[in-house]
Amino acid sequence: MAKGDVLIRVAVDAMGGDYAPGEVVAGAVDAARRGGVQVIVVGDPDAVRGELARHDIAGLPVVPMPSQGTILEEEQPAIALRQKPKASVVVATGMVKAGHADACVTMGSTGAAMAAAAVMLGVMPGIGRPALGGPVLGMAPRTIILDLGANVDCRPAQLVSFAAIGEVFARLFWEVDNPRIALLSVGSETGKGNRQVRETTELLAASGLNFVGNVEADDLPNGAAEVVVCDGFVGNIVMKLTEGAGAALGRRIAERLDGAMQQDEIDALAQEVRSLHNVVESHGGGPLLGVKGVSVVGHGRAKADAVSLAIGTAVRAVEIGFTSKVSEQLLSLQERPGSST
Amino acid sequence: MAKGDVLIRVAVDAMGGDYAPGEVVAGAVDAARRGGVQVIVVGDPDAVRGELARHDIAGLPVVPMPSQGTILEEEQPAIALRQKPKASVVVATGMVKAGHADACVTMGSTGAAMAAAAVMLGVMPGIGRPALGGPVLGMAPRTIILDLGANVDCRPAQLVSFAAIGEVFARLFWEVDNPRIALLSVGSETGKGNRQVRETTELLAASGLNFVGNVEADDLPNGAAEVVVCDGFVGNIVMKLTEGAGAALGRRIAERLDGAMQQDEIDALAQEVRSLHNVVESHGGGPLLGVKGVSVVGHGRAKADAVSLAIGTAVRAVEIGFTSKVSEQLLSLQERPGSST
Repeated sequence: MAKGDVLIRVAVDAMGGDYAPGEVVAGAVDAARRGGVQVIVVGDPDAVRGELARHDIAGLPVVPMPSQGTILEEEQPAIALRQKPKASVVVATGMVKAGHADACVTMGSTGAAMAAAAVMLGVMPGIGRPALGGPVLGMAPRTIILDLGANVDCRPAQLVSFAAIGEVFARLFWEVDNPRIALLSVGSETGKGNRQVRETTELLAASGLNFVGNVEADDLPNGAAEVVVCDGFVGNIVMKLTEGAGAALGRRIAERLDGAMQQDEIDALAQEVRSLHNVVESHGGGPLLGVKGVSVVGHGRAKADAVSLAIGTAVRAVEIGFTSKVSEQLLSLQERPGSST
Repeated sequence: MAKGDVLIRVAVDAMGGDYAPGEVVAGAVDAARRGGVQVIVVGDPDAVRGELARHDIAGLPVVPMPSQGTILEEEQPAIALRQKPKASVVVATGMVKAGHADACVTMGSTGAAMAAAAVMLGVMPGIGRPALGGPVLGMAPRTIILDLGANVDCRPAQLVSFAAIGEVFARLFWEVDNPRIALLSVGSETGKGNRQVRETTELLAASGLNFVGNVEADDLPNGAAEVVVCDGFVGNIVMKLTEGAGAALGRRIAERLDGAMQQDEIDALAQEVRSLHNVVESHGGGPLLGVKGVSVVGHGRAKADAVSLAIGTAVRAVEIGFTSKVSEQLLSLQERPGSST
C-alpha cells in the first residue's frame, strides 16, 4: 500500500471496455475505498458524473477528469490516436506523461493503449513495440508468457529483452528469487526449433540470465518456468487456443454431466475449467512491458472486481518501481560484452 | 475395402513404437483378420516369429519380412538412416519404393519415417520436407491442421502447397465436397498476422482454392474450417499445448470430483477430457503429406487397436489414390498464372 500518507495516483479510462462506464467506475470506486490509491476517473463528463452519482464517494479520493470520445477495438490505433487526441485512453496516458498520475489503467482497446503508451510515454531501447505478457494457463499461474501478441515478427535480440523483462516481472511481482527463464520451442533439445528460436537459444545462453533451456508447449501447464519467452504471433496463438479450448471444454463437460450431478455443481465445475484455461480474465490485467511508465491493460470483459484488481496491479507496479527496474535490467543486458542488442 | 480379390499390401514396421513389437504385431494381425489387406510384418526375425506365434494366423494374409535393428526416437534421423540401412522403417519404406508394398506404416520415430520417405520415395515439388497433418482437437475431428512440426521455417508458397494437400485430404478421406481452407493467424482481419501470414493470405486468396480467410486459435475447437494451415513450428505448439492442457485438465477434474461421483465415472470423464484434447492418440495416425508414396506414421504410444486403425488409414489412402490426387492438385496449383511456387 501507499507509503505514509502519499496516495498513488491512477488514471482510469472510464470509457474503455465492454462494460464501460458503469462497471469501470464501480471498480474504480471500489479500489479507492480499499485505500492507498487516488483514482482519477477519465471519461466523458456526463457519463462519469452519472456513474459516480450511483456511489457514495464522500471523502473518497476519487477525482473526475474530462475526456472526449473513446477509441474502439475495431479502429486502427495509430490513426485513431491522431483523430481523437482527447479520447479517454489518450488523456489517461497523458496524465502519466505529464506527471499528474503515477499510472494509467484501461479495459479498452489494447492496440490503442499500446499506441498511446508508445507515442506518449516512449518505449525502452531494443523492445520494438510495448510487449504484452502475463500468466495464461490457470494451471501455471506463476508463469509469465511474453510476448502475447504485440510483436508478431521478433528478432532474436528482442526475445532476449522479453526474457529480461519477464525476469524482473517474476522477481518483483511474485517475489521469486531467481526466476527460471525458458524459450518456447518444438523440442527441448538445443538445435531444435525454427531459425529464430535457434538463434535466440544461443543469445539467451550467453545473456547471464537464468536460462533453463527450451520448453515444449505440453510442459506449459506444469509450470516448467516462471518466464516463457516467445514471439507475439506464437504467444497470441497459445493464449487464444487456451481460452477457446477451455470454453469449448467447459460446455462439453456441462453437457456430459447433465443429470449426473446437481446443476449448480456442474456450473461451478464448468466455470472452473474455463478459469483454468483463462487466467487473463481472472487476474485483472497486466502492465504493458518495456514502456517508460506504468500503463495497465485489462480484459475487455472486465467487470468491477476485475477493474479493481487491475488498478491494484497498477499500484503495485508503481510501489515496486517496476518501470525503473525493467529499464536497469535492459541496460545491464546491453552492457554485457558481446551483446547484439 | 479391397477391389475384387486384390489385397492391398501394407508393410508394417514391427519394431517401432513404445509397445513394439508385441502390440504392433497384434494390431497387424487384427488388421489382416478384418480383411482387404495383406500385412507384411517387418522386424527382427526372432522377435517377429515370437510375436506371430502368439496369434492364430493360419490362412491370414500375414507375411514376415526380416530387418535388422530400429531407429530410435532420440537418434538423428539422417545419420541413423546411413548407419542402419537395414533398420525396420527403412526396409518397410523400401518395399514401397520397390513396388513390393502399396504402403508402409510405423509407430516409431516420426523423424526416421520422414527421412526414409524423403530419401527413398521422394518429396513432391514445392513441399520441402514431408509435412505432418491431421485433426488435433477432439472437438474438431473434421479439421486437419498442417504442418504439425516437420517444416519449422516455411515460405508462403509452401504454406499454399499445404493448403492444397489439406484440401485433397479433407475431400478424399472425409468426403467433404468443397473443404474450407483457413490460415491460422492472430486476427481474422486481412492485414493482421506476421509477415509470413500476410504474404500467404495474398497467395491463398489468388490460389483458386476455397480460402475462407484467417482464423484465430480460439476458433479452432469450433471446427471453423476443414483445413487449417500454419507453419510446423506453430502447428507443433498447437498440438503439444492441446495435449498437455488436456492431460493436466483431466487430472484436475479427477481431483475435483473425487468423492462426488463414482470413481469409474470420474475416470471415464477424465479420459474423455484427455481424448477431446488429443485426437492423435485415438485416430491411429496419418500419412506423411507431399510424399511420393503412402507412408503412415502413428503415435508412439499406439496399442494394437491404434495400430490396426493406422493400417486401415494406409489402406484407405491407397484405395482413394491419395498420392496421385495430391500430386495432381499441386501441379494444377503450380500451373495457375502468377503462381510463385
